[in-house]
Amino acid sequence: MIIIEGPAGNRIGEDIARILKVSLIRIEPRFFPDGESRIKIPDLPEHSDVVIVQSTYFPQDKHMMELFFIADALKERGVESITAVVPYLAYARQNRKFEEEDIVSIGTALKLVSEAGVSTLITVEPHKSEALSFFKGKTIIVDASEAFYREISKQVKKPFILSPDNGGIERAKKIASMLGCKYGFIEKERDLKTGMIKAGGSVREDLAGKDIVIVDDIISSGGTIENASRLAASKGARSIIAVAVHLVMVGDAYERMANAGVSEVYGTNTIPYEKAKLIDLSGYIAGTIRNARK
Amino acid sequence: MIIIEGPAGNRIGEDIARILKVSLIRIEPRFFPDGESRIKIPDLPEHSDVVIVQSTYFPQDKHMMELFFIADALKERGVESITAVVPYLAYARQNRKFEEEDIVSIGTALKLVSEAGVSTLITVEPHKSEALSFFKGKTIIVDASEAFYREISKQVKKPFILSPDNGGIERAKKIASMLGCKYGFIEKERDLKTGMIKAGGSVREDLAGKDIVIVDDIISSGGTIENASRLAASKGARSIIAVAVHLVMVGDAYERMANAGVSEVYGTNTIPYEKAKLIDLSGYIAGTIRNARK
Repeated sequence: MIIIEGPAGNRIGEDIARILKVSLIRIEPRFFPDGESRIKIPDLPEHSDVVIVQSTYFPQDKHMMELFFIADALKERGVESITAVVPYLAYARQNRKFEEEDIVSIGTALKLVSEAGVSTLITVEPHKSEALSFFKGKTIIVDASEAFYREISKQVKKPFILSPDNGGIERAKKIASMLGCKYGFIEKERDLKTGMIKAGGSVREDLAGKDIVIVDDIISSGGTIENASRLAASKGARSIIAVAVHLVMVGDAYERMANAGVSEVYGTNTIPYEKAKLIDLSGYIAGTIRNARK
Repeated sequence: MIIIEGPAGNRIGEDIARILKVSLIRIEPRFFPDGESRIKIPDLPEHSDVVIVQSTYFPQDKHMMELFFIADALKERGVESITAVVPYLAYARQNRKFEEEDIVSIGTALKLVSEAGVSTLITVEPHKSEALSFFKGKTIIVDASEAFYREISKQVKKPFILSPDNGGIERAKKIASMLGCKYGFIEKERDLKTGMIKAGGSVREDLAGKDIVIVDDIISSGGTIENASRLAASKGARSIIAVAVHLVMVGDAYERMANAGVSEVYGTNTIPYEKAKLIDLSGYIAGTIRNARK
């Protein structure tokens, strides 16, 4: 097996190669003066099983094209098999039509990943697992829950896992059960007179004196976490931190959360981000690759 | 037939629809806050023949992905046929390995254009026509020579068409023959003592008193045109203009050429560029689409 770390591999490929004790080729980000990507791939041993590690954070389209370029070039060289590890999978939230005119972007992206020669796709918690159904080969999802459990147990004494919406209940429940603590989620509240959804929402459990850990899959604008944090603070939380798998972090997301009482933001290394503490998932991804080979 | 102008259509789709008297759908550039493209395509009549107009200038990868998204979404909707007009085709210069480690990017890009459902590809003078061989369907090249001839004959009295290298001789010859004027190209000169290529090069013909028209396919850094302009000026040119198909224009390309004596730069609307006069190729592209249907 050879690990090929793409320009957006965020050093995960390097870590995986070290853990699995296999050789590593790093493809540095290179560009022509006009901005076109210039991918260079050294000679490979014949009949190699290759694992490309390439995340697809911003600029998503460039990183996606780099993945296509690398996979297709390897296919042309006749490698034995191509696995792609895409720690953060762009466009995974566009897995269905929200409006009639919408397109299903992840469908196109994953079809083309297949066409570029990738037969196995490994990714970390996509927003909806159904999104992966468009990929023609085998798909494996890496779960960040255990890594979160380890980090949270180091950071706080009396954790309460709070999902900012009902879509994240399963994740909250899983992490809470590892920690042996309680969990809850924020319910939308309707104004009984107007029928409109009220800002803020409500949570059934008692948060007073607890160390609130808001857990989500993606932090984008930070607005969801901001709201959850304000609610937790109003319910008497002792401390508030936010933990998310993918820190997309658009604009002033960090400041919004900090201003709402979040004392620390934890993410993972699927996306580089300087202000937060990033939990390294390389070991979990390496384990997933190893298990997939059995 | 329906023309679908993509976010990087540069209004060419609109022009073509007007010329061919067919309906037009314009897909505006839309993005999610994190930078992912958000393509929306209105309802189409059943069994439509669609022509997507989408150039792939900078940011090339985003525009290429938009083309994939649009084509694939149309294929999913079951349209009758998909033609893609890609006025400027990114990565067309990467059509062979210059070094052993290089990849053939245009090969991957065009294979994926095919996979996304495009059966006919129309583009304006790619750097090497061989680049199109990677596309699985029919390819048609739109030639800008006649448009150049018309513009040059309006602009200068005593034209001399100068190709800045021997690779552009055919283009220079073709335009010169329409204008009924002379043409030449810049030959590399070697220092007889050291064997090294001398800066500048030489041109065999007499340029004194002539209106020099430097013609090339792509202007990127502007260095090639800068060199040609300095040579023409040193040989007594009366005036110097530059005409190129695709104005990629990296960094201070315009200023480099202006400082070397180029009084005006002419390009085409395959790539938007404000400082130059852009010749509209929509009529030629519309004619090509019309002929392809016969």
